[in-house]
Amino acid sequence: MDSKLGIIGGMGPMTTAVFIRMIVSMTDVERDQDHIPMVIEHCPGVPDRTSYILDKKSPNPSEAIIEAGKSLAAAGATEIAIPCFTAHYFHDILEEHIPIPVINGIEVVADQLRKDGVNTAGVMATDGTVAADIFKTALEKKGIRCIYPDEADQRGVMSLIFDYVKANRIAPRELFFEICDHLRSAGADTVILGCTEFSVIAESLEYREDITDAMRLLAARCIADFDKRIKTDDK
Amino acid sequence: MDSKLGIIGGMGPMTTAVFIRMIVSMTDVERDQDHIPMVIEHCPGVPDRTSYILDKKSPNPSEAIIEAGKSLAAAGATEIAIPCFTAHYFHDILEEHIPIPVINGIEVVADQLRKDGVNTAGVMATDGTVAADIFKTALEKKGIRCIYPDEADQRGVMSLIFDYVKANRIAPRELFFEICDHLRSAGADTVILGCTEFSVIAESLEYREDITDAMRLLAARCIADFDKRIKTDDK
Repeated sequence: MDSKLGIIGGMGPMTTAVFIRMIVSMTDVERDQDHIPMVIEHCPGVPDRTSYILDKKSPNPSEAIIEAGKSLAAAGATEIAIPCFTAHYFHDILEEHIPIPVINGIEVVADQLRKDGVNTAGVMATDGTVAADIFKTALEKKGIRCIYPDEADQRGVMSLIFDYVKANRIAPRELFFEICDHLRSAGADTVILGCTEFSVIAESLEYREDITDAMRLLAARCIADFDKRIKTDDK
Repeated sequence: MDSKLGIIGGMGPMTTAVFIRMIVSMTDVERDQDHIPMVIEHCPGVPDRTSYILDKKSPNPSEAIIEAGKSLAAAGATEIAIPCFTAHYFHDILEEHIPIPVINGIEVVADQLRKDGVNTAGVMATDGTVAADIFKTALEKKGIRCIYPDEADQRGVMSLIFDYVKANRIAPRELFFEICDHLRSAGADTVILGCTEFSVIAESLEYREDITDAMRLLAARCIADFDKRIKTDDK
């Protein structure tokens, strides 16, 4: 069977468009026919991941994510990527119920940072990702220290995600960079954009070497898995 | 059954990402869960549409497009949009073989231009769309005259599409605007971006009132069909 990338998207909706665009623009080919075939379940209706992680009485999003994964497998997908790091909280249960491999985006990021020799990483992510230590656990296993924004900055993180990107508004770049810079001052060698919504913000900003666009690493992993080369002039 | 938009994408790949982004950014909602659910078959491998239209000995793309449409229907799509106007050459046969409605993007554009009181429209589209008079036939039925670029400009049109957007290179805006302006001088009230690849170019340029971004009209139609409001501040 031909290989085909499955994407469980819609978490959030804009992020999914940016993720597809990343994969396309990072793939080093010259004509349509050489690009990676994909099938995308764009499910914005999946209950909010953070709400469930913080309060187990909120609707559990895992069922909807599993359904989407099964549907992708039925449509011929051979591997699944999920451009939502908070949803990786459910990675084990997804792997268990979805009949095709689900890329662990958190491991992809941790592996790359270890390779890059990072000692301390700052993480900008949802309250859910932070509360569940999704990145922290994976990073510490690789010997990388993980630091979070302070309480006020974490409120800023959530505001950027929910009041701006998810609300379809242009995010204030000053706030974004301020939080990055505080993490750098607190000792982070790099700042992980640990919520894919930040990749939407980062797309319109100048490239900064001390920022790790985690979704970009996930896109690169997809391209490598489908035996395509990554465009070297793509930032 | 809940409604779900099906998209047959990959024609081209970047265009599909831009189309999804358009729908998301034009939909007037404030949280993920209110966005339109979609399922997207991203099939960059579909044989080139123009090659087939110009030379019927080239591989016929309709079979692959029909397969994608059937797969979307099986995945729960209730209506299909195809962000590739050249592929609309096959609209009748697609409607015949795909068990759910397929939006006719050409009709969407013609209806809007008639409503706008356009008398003459310039069309920037692939050699295939031009040779088959895909827009011209629909426009003339609504009493709108259709004009095409001259031979040299039509070569420019094809170069912008194939040598730049499809080849993942930044298109020269001067050439793009030059062709638009020639059509305006030749009497066009508006210039239809009649190949969705031009919407990728247009996305990064300033808005011009005399240009009709046809893919944007298709996105607006999808949003209306799914009973969502269109954001008024979106250009």
